[in-house]
Amino acid sequence: MKEKLTIVKVGGKIVENDAALDRLIRDFSQIPGYKVLIHGGGRTATDVAAQLGVETKMVGGRRITDAEMLRVVTMVYAGLVNKNVVAQLEAAGVCALGLTGADMDVIRSHRRPAGEVDYGFVGDVDRVDGERLAQLIHGGIVPVMVPLTHDGKGCMLNTNADTIAGETAKALAGFFDVTLIYCFEFAGVLGDPQDEGSVIPRIDRPFFDKLVEEGIVSGGMIPKLENCLAAVEAGVGRIIITRADLLNADLEHGAGTVIA
Amino acid sequence: MKEKLTIVKVGGKIVENDAALDRLIRDFSQIPGYKVLIHGGGRTATDVAAQLGVETKMVGGRRITDAEMLRVVTMVYAGLVNKNVVAQLEAAGVCALGLTGADMDVIRSHRRPAGEVDYGFVGDVDRVDGERLAQLIHGGIVPVMVPLTHDGKGCMLNTNADTIAGETAKALAGFFDVTLIYCFEFAGVLGDPQDEGSVIPRIDRPFFDKLVEEGIVSGGMIPKLENCLAAVEAGVGRIIITRADLLNADLEHGAGTVIA
Repeated sequence: MKEKLTIVKVGGKIVENDAALDRLIRDFSQIPGYKVLIHGGGRTATDVAAQLGVETKMVGGRRITDAEMLRVVTMVYAGLVNKNVVAQLEAAGVCALGLTGADMDVIRSHRRPAGEVDYGFVGDVDRVDGERLAQLIHGGIVPVMVPLTHDGKGCMLNTNADTIAGETAKALAGFFDVTLIYCFEFAGVLGDPQDEGSVIPRIDRPFFDKLVEEGIVSGGMIPKLENCLAAVEAGVGRIIITRADLLNADLEHGAGTVIA
Repeated sequence: MKEKLTIVKVGGKIVENDAALDRLIRDFSQIPGYKVLIHGGGRTATDVAAQLGVETKMVGGRRITDAEMLRVVTMVYAGLVNKNVVAQLEAAGVCALGLTGADMDVIRSHRRPAGEVDYGFVGDVDRVDGERLAQLIHGGIVPVMVPLTHDGKGCMLNTNADTIAGETAKALAGFFDVTLIYCFEFAGVLGDPQDEGSVIPRIDRPFFDKLVEEGIVSGGMIPKLENCLAAVEAGVGRIIITRADLLNADLEHGAGTVIA
């Protein structure tokens, strides 16, 4: 019987707002047992870039990371935002360790080849060193990871935080019974986008196919859920989609969508 | 017989210059056995601060760290400069882990009380967790530390890099036979400030007293050497003052000043 590990991914919105961060620190520090936090920091990056005169270019909701923007996200994610989160977690009694993929080579990626769009210094993950992370976690350390990886040749690469969360969960599934919690703006996957109370409690592969067929799940939610189902099929115990302020609610029984 | 550990402290000048950094990475990666790197990043911090419209205030050569400057040094030291160094070391085959004092609570400090000068968010070190660092180092990890600590209450603090190097060396002296190398602009302590060839090969307490008495050592060099002697008296094996490009020279036999 593997020990439990909880991986929580929160977006920039949470860690960049003092009140929301306070709440996250309190809730996250109360999660029992082994855990990992993965956070973004995109708004601060956009703000700092603007102050530095670096233009933020987005294509289809994704950031184009040129050399100047890579400097900005490296500063903001790994420095400003991460160290604030780490210091707050330490104050709450959590033994937190800030990590990029370059640190101890925990996440190696390669630069995405330019296709129709050249995203610049953006990395697609090749492998996560689950063994190294598991060692740290077993040693009582809580990794606090930012969406940056490296190519093994000295270059940092900007990497999607949801992807980092999913790949890390898969790599750690060999060592722990992993629950991956994606915090987003709703309490879960909604059956009716107009009704926040219509959270679907549980989705498995057959039910997902039905939801897509019926058009209840559509657009960007399809690849998101596809990735979740693939992670579960790769050994992750369960994935929960919920709101950050529900982290300590009864997530498996109504306070979020469980994908398993 | 304790195993050997080499701690190298380099200033911003080295890690902020591409050619000097390349050389440092090559030389540092060739140091055999356990090691730690401590680096600054002050010039980049000053540059980024200027770009962000944050004024750099110095009193007696020391930076005043107001709230805005604390954001800048946190971004630059822990983010931009550290992750570049870590990624380069990884490319050279070193298992590097970037650390501030907040990470795993490795260096706790308190904000320096305002005296004649209020240095702002500057920390004086209370304790270094040598046991945690020794565990990492025995696990094959090379800590790459930046001059930032935390107060244990959620606040990061800017902290002198020489002090971090000295305190870390003392904390690790219980676990290893420690050699601490301070890289600076000359090949060692000079007997004649006009003659770069006049490196004093070895200084102990009685010889230091004589050098001070004769006026050969004066000014800012006196507290620097006092700190070195105190570290040696606290168990650090030896401290070597040299130039970064001499790291792989025969430091104990003429290519630097050994304080022991």
